Amino acid sequence: MNFSMDPRTRKLLEEIQELVEQELYPLESQLETAGVRSLLPGLQEVRKKVRELGYWCPHVPREYGGMGLSLVEHGLVSAVLGRCQLGHYAFNCQAPDAGNMEILIKHATPQQKSTFLQPLLEGQIRSCFAMTEPERPGSNPTWMETSAVRDGPDYVINGRKWFTSAADGSTFAVVMAVTDAAAGRYERASMILVPLETAGFRIVRNIPIMGHAGEDYFSHGEVLFEDCRVPRENLLGAEGAAFKIAQERLGAGRIHHCMRWIGICERAIELMCRRAADRELSPGQPLGSKQIVQRWIADSWTQTQAARLMVLNAAWKMEEDGQLGARKEISAIKYYAANVLQKVLDRAIQAHGGLGVTSDTPLAGFFRDERAARIYDGPDEVHRIVIARELLRPYGLKVTF
Amino acid sequence: MNFSMDPRTRKLLEEIQELVEQELYPLESQLETAGVRSLLPGLQEVRKKVRELGYWCPHVPREYGGMGLSLVEHGLVSAVLGRCQLGHYAFNCQAPDAGNMEILIKHATPQQKSTFLQPLLEGQIRSCFAMTEPERPGSNPTWMETSAVRDGPDYVINGRKWFTSAADGSTFAVVMAVTDAAAGRYERASMILVPLETAGFRIVRNIPIMGHAGEDYFSHGEVLFEDCRVPRENLLGAEGAAFKIAQERLGAGRIHHCMRWIGICERAIELMCRRAADRELSPGQPLGSKQIVQRWIADSWTQTQAARLMVLNAAWKMEEDGQLGARKEISAIKYYAANVLQKVLDRAIQAHGGLGVTSDTPLAGFFRDERAARIYDGPDEVHRIVIARELLRPYGLKVTF
Amino acid sequence: MNFSMDPRTRKLLEEIQELVEQELYPLESQLETAGVRSLLPGLQEVRKKVRELGYWCPHVPREYGGMGLSLVEHGLVSAVLGRCQLGHYAFNCQAPDAGNMEILIKHATPQQKSTFLQPLLEGQIRSCFAMTEPERPGSNPTWMETSAVRDGPDYVINGRKWFTSAADGSTFAVVMAVTDAAAGRYERASMILVPLETAGFRIVRNIPIMGHAGEDYFSHGEVLFEDCRVPRENLLGAEGAAFKIAQERLGAGRIHHCMRWIGICERAIELMCRRAADRELSPGQPLGSKQIVQRWIADSWTQTQAARLMVLNAAWKMEEDGQLGARKEISAIKYYAANVLQKVLDRAIQAHGGLGVTSDTPLAGFFRDERAARIYDGPDEVHRIVIARELLRPYGLKVTF
Amino acid sequence: MNFSMDPRTRKLLEEIQELVEQELYPLESQLETAGVRSLLPGLQEVRKKVRELGYWCPHVPREYGGMGLSLVEHGLVSAVLGRCQLGHYAFNCQAPDAGNMEILIKHATPQQKSTFLQPLLEGQIRSCFAMTEPERPGSNPTWMETSAVRDGPDYVINGRKWFTSAADGSTFAVVMAVTDAAAGRYERASMILVPLETAGFRIVRNIPIMGHAGEDYFSHGEVLFEDCRVPRENLLGAEGAAFKIAQERLGAGRIHHCMRWIGICERAIELMCRRAADRELSPGQPLGSKQIVQRWIADSWTQTQAARLMVLNAAWKMEEDGQLGARKEISAIKYYAANVLQKVLDRAIQAHGGLGVTSDTPLAGFFRDERAARIYDGPDEVHRIVIARELLRPYGLKVTF
Repeated sequence: MNFSMDPRTRKLLEEIQELVEQELYPLESQLETAGVRSLLPGLQEVRKKVRELGYWCPHVPREYGGMGLSLVEHGLVSAVLGRCQLGHYAFNCQAPDAGNMEILIKHATPQQKSTFLQPLLEGQIRSCFAMTEPERPGSNPTWMETSAVRDGPDYVINGRKWFTSAADGSTFAVVMAVTDAAAGRYERASMILVPLETAGFRIVRNIPIMGHAGEDYFSHGEVLFEDCRVPRENLLGAEGAAFKIAQERLGAGRIHHCMRWIGICERAIELMCRRAADRELSPGQPLGSKQIVQRWIADSWTQTQAARLMVLNAAWKMEEDGQLGARKEISAIKYYAANVLQKVLDRAIQAHGGLGVTSDTPLAGFFRDERAARIYDGPDEVHRIVIARELLRPYGLKVTF
Repeated sequence: MNFSMDPRTRKLLEEIQELVEQELYPLESQLETAGVRSLLPGLQEVRKKVRELGYWCPHVPREYGGMGLSLVEHGLVSAVLGRCQLGHYAFNCQAPDAGNMEILIKHATPQQKSTFLQPLLEGQIRSCFAMTEPERPGSNPTWMETSAVRDGPDYVINGRKWFTSAADGSTFAVVMAVTDAAAGRYERASMILVPLETAGFRIVRNIPIMGHAGEDYFSHGEVLFEDCRVPRENLLGAEGAAFKIAQERLGAGRIHHCMRWIGICERAIELMCRRAADRELSPGQPLGSKQIVQRWIADSWTQTQAARLMVLNAAWKMEEDGQLGARKEISAIKYYAANVLQKVLDRAIQAHGGLGVTSDTPLAGFFRDERAARIYDGPDEVHRIVIARELLRPYGLKVTF
Repeated sequence: MNFSMDPRTRKLLEEIQELVEQELYPLESQLETAGVRSLLPGLQEVRKKVRELGYWCPHVPREYGGMGLSLVEHGLVSAVLGRCQLGHYAFNCQAPDAGNMEILIKHATPQQKSTFLQPLLEGQIRSCFAMTEPERPGSNPTWMETSAVRDGPDYVINGRKWFTSAADGSTFAVVMAVTDAAAGRYERASMILVPLETAGFRIVRNIPIMGHAGEDYFSHGEVLFEDCRVPRENLLGAEGAAFKIAQERLGAGRIHHCMRWIGICERAIELMCRRAADRELSPGQPLGSKQIVQRWIADSWTQTQAARLMVLNAAWKMEEDGQLGARKEISAIKYYAANVLQKVLDRAIQAHGGLGVTSDTPLAGFFRDERAARIYDGPDEVHRIVIARELLRPYGLKVTF
Repeated sequence: MNFSMDPRTRKLLEEIQELVEQELYPLESQLETAGVRSLLPGLQEVRKKVRELGYWCPHVPREYGGMGLSLVEHGLVSAVLGRCQLGHYAFNCQAPDAGNMEILIKHATPQQKSTFLQPLLEGQIRSCFAMTEPERPGSNPTWMETSAVRDGPDYVINGRKWFTSAADGSTFAVVMAVTDAAAGRYERASMILVPLETAGFRIVRNIPIMGHAGEDYFSHGEVLFEDCRVPRENLLGAEGAAFKIAQERLGAGRIHHCMRWIGICERAIELMCRRAADRELSPGQPLGSKQIVQRWIADSWTQTQAARLMVLNAAWKMEEDGQLGARKEISAIKYYAANVLQKVLDRAIQAHGGLGVTSDTPLAGFFRDERAARIYDGPDEVHRIVIARELLRPYGLKVTF
């Protein structure tokens, strides 16, 4: 066991953090007040610089033009990028594109790679992932209504999806649809690549999340497929393989999310410490002299440390033993880190008093947007059951959902 | 001891709840997407009906045209109105106007009553309350920068305030400003009535709260006084009496807020129960069959019951023993109910899954807006110290802040 | 609604508290070190005085020689008695005798009353209640193994029970046993009165609870029935009525327990306050000057207040609407108060540092003994399900256990 | 970063666990009912076997006859030993002897080593550590009353100590006493070796902890020094060095304690899983089919994993950067792990129902004894302040205690 970080990685993280602080923090405050569209030109400049410095697509193998980082290394980078809502976008490793890149690299045909993957890797386009449906529980991805029916050389897709994040402005969607309702529970659905200009596809709305519809990359679409027809060559992987591909996508995705949340926590702790040192409750009595504030800081740091070690350990185990071998660890970090995130943000807001709920700091935006962290990619409750199922199996008890 | 509710009150509450559900729930969803201004005509109609039915200004004495309810009775009404974000406004008992009415009734001169109170009671105008300052802790209202200097027949006010709720669209503000910096800590400031059309007054911005600047009644202003001159007749109560008046205002105000939160909790529990009964996790398996969901429901109901009894008890004690005699009880409900509110909303959102964070239900709006409940009118931490101070005094320990 | 206490009750409580503090506190510390047997002579004296003062059997109707208090009034008395582990015993309203008296008064034949009830009311004997079995979940009282088979004029009982509290030294047991295994789930078992000197009855052991086997009244027996034969006249109530009688017994019993716990909480808060005022962390710095200690005190008081109001409200509702009508309220207090108890004791111990875990204060004994409060009379989880079942029924969802 | 365990260590842990399960589990249940004295002969046999197998004194350098494990390795061993209350004793690495060995190795003179250290390493004698005083807060070890006054060739010690663990049956004590009250806060006290047969030394009592006075190794003494005279050669280290030595002792000691607690957690989780699989709530419905029980298991595992990784990381950092460099990490694990321990035991007890509070499983004994874990070696609150102090220093805020 060795908890040290090699000097090369340490240097990389310092450089990236400097970049994030200097280039992205200044743009951040406009995100809430002016929306992301007004920021896109500035972000393009940053992306260009990131690419020149060789930090582009850190999670993507070198042969595809990325940095080729291991899962542990990318996790560490992700924590630094997560300190700012614009971080992952600037480095072209933002969800859902990052996950889409991963499954396209693994499953796409050469033609699909040229059409869909290449411009994504170049940062010329964005993509989205259409799985969750409003009328079906996201926690049960084997039960969905959207269908893709073969009709001659095409699939004809019908259905409604939501939380199709970043659909607004995307060029294509990876769509999960039932191709064989009679098949086994885990073989019913397939992944299909759908250009968004296809007739029959429509973004119904950017869903208002806590009153915020957002726009472009920072949005969550409700989308409709009405006799939406794409050629059968747009099938990604085998027919019936959607569940398996979705699971693959989620494994690394959960590491990415968790480390991003840890980055948010670390930023929140810094803001809380600065506030504690600078704000006075009465002349000469700093906020940080109060024991409760000290407790908030200590608990936040301790829990963030715990989450960080668990996530790195899960990433390491996933690389050693594969996703199935790290099932308990992945479920544990998903719900543990999401809960730490919510608590740390809550404390940081409380420490800021009225200022904490305003958009004058990034805390309120994180708090509002990341309430969903305990829901997406499997709610807390499902992950707890997964862990219990693994632990109870050796005792002969079969846990069902 | 008698926990029964008299039949007259019970009937009143049922009638008001029916009105809220029929007239206000339909308007509620537009509040987030379209803003309150587009709703004002519709709300005017409801207000007219409320007045015709005799429910106008429930907290105001009969001689001033209100229902003349006791604090306990108004608390019960407040819980019903709180079920919808528009409830209190429709009955003309919304904060900060309700509190302003109370202090004007008690302290205003006949001339001030005619100019400021009367149109407020009629619902012709709205008002705001300018106490908290961005550079000073709201938890310490004896330490402020805004000054009102006598200059001939006038006060000249300078300073910056924020969280001046509903300033946008208000006709006047009750402003707390230092009139004698050399006086004792609790006698430095005075309350002054400032028409917002006065030269030197300016609304700098509606502060974005979690990305939502809001408008009109649903907004929180940052306001600036630059050599803002008002006649000395606009002094409310005695010079130096501001702290005392603010405390009076807060006592009943905390009862109102707490009961409003309980109304929100009760609404959230209903939504959670309906969701638990209607949503299926898999065919034939309702969400509510899961033990964790049952636990959320049970804990939410139990804690809301606890909060409700405590608030009613505090209201009762305040009427019996006065505000000072009920100090422990008032501080206890302020922080206890605010924390129950946050937990209940959090569980209700989690029970709704992705839907919970959208604005398709009122839950997300409540969650976002009411994070501040643990901060305004005294943060949790201050109320805990107040209670400890009262409890430790008999043991000879003097607790300081 | 009226939260006032009538002057007569207030006076009664003050007198009883004085008695408890003067007569019982001095005996309390010996309880842990020397065991209850050595205290019995002293306790007899106190019991005599209690009786002379007219406080004997506060929960028992006047016609049976008790004080005839209402459930609410007895609840208030119970909170005062609960401050000391010896309180209820001294007033002859200790569990399980108090519950046994109640069901004997309601269901016993004149002969049974003369044999079993009368000496119990006089305090000449003690009794126990044998329901829970080691191999069956206490939370499911419809599933038990112990049987009572009719044989001529007798019942022959076989089975093993545990947590037969205070069996050691008791004169008789109320035993719940299956008399008709083929009957409906709630009609299988009957209540039978078994003198402990009956052949075939045996106390296997006083179960060590956290290492403490206890003795006499302060013990929990594991008891065995081996062909234990009692006359059929010892049947209490109808055959098959055991479940119904047990439920009746539990309703009021939960009020008694909860108010007893509140008494413990109030004692613990007093001890914590005194410690906070008297203990110095460094010269001149009292423990209570620390904000965390203030928070422990404030939270403990607030939660105890919440529990107290809920229990009194449940007692009131039970008297108004009967036990079924107050089902939600009773389940809510059972688990809520038990959890508050555990938290308050935990904080009080922490505030005492090392002293807190010693038997030099009553806190550690309370902490150790009352861990079971979240288990007996229905564990937390069962009560939560009961509440959810009641709340979800109107929405058409049937909750099963 | 590398989370793998080398095969040698893995094998060692498996062998030790087998030994613990086969040799010590069978003795464990007698510990509560019969006391440790009756077990000593059996334990001697196990100790002999441990020594023959080469596992004796795992934390002691090879040149002193131990296994010479690193702090991380010994931590891993400690977690296995902690599964049983008798584990550390059987391997001669029990507190307080383990810590005493460490400071004797580092600071003792050759003569002291021969007299005190050697028989301790051999397991021929036991020792105790007398620091905490009843009238002074253990959290402030710079404020104590016990004095050691030079008188000719001797020190004359006067004072009262408590929580002198395992004093009963010990051969000598390491005593912390003020030798120069006028010196700086951290230089006032010295460590002195006191044979317990010295005149003037007396064990006043084995302090009852939650009603359990214990005996021999499993006891906590209150001890009195009355003109207790020892030669000045019994000074350990320099005069005035006691605070520094105590701190050194505590650093590694906290790692040992934390890993021991993790062993307890792992045992508790196993017991909870077995109970969940084996116990039926109704025919065919295992306890573990309940979602709340699954949640207890999942949360317990997750939090134990978090604690385990944090402790190993702290041990690693302490070896790399020294105790001062790992100050935040050590404080974090001390309070985090102690709280996890309490929660895991609480859940395991709840999952066992009534059985959980009995001494029929080891859970109740762990629960009772380890409540003190949040108090000894620095209470939660002090460790939180240490962390906040470290985190706030870079922002220019000086945190005081």
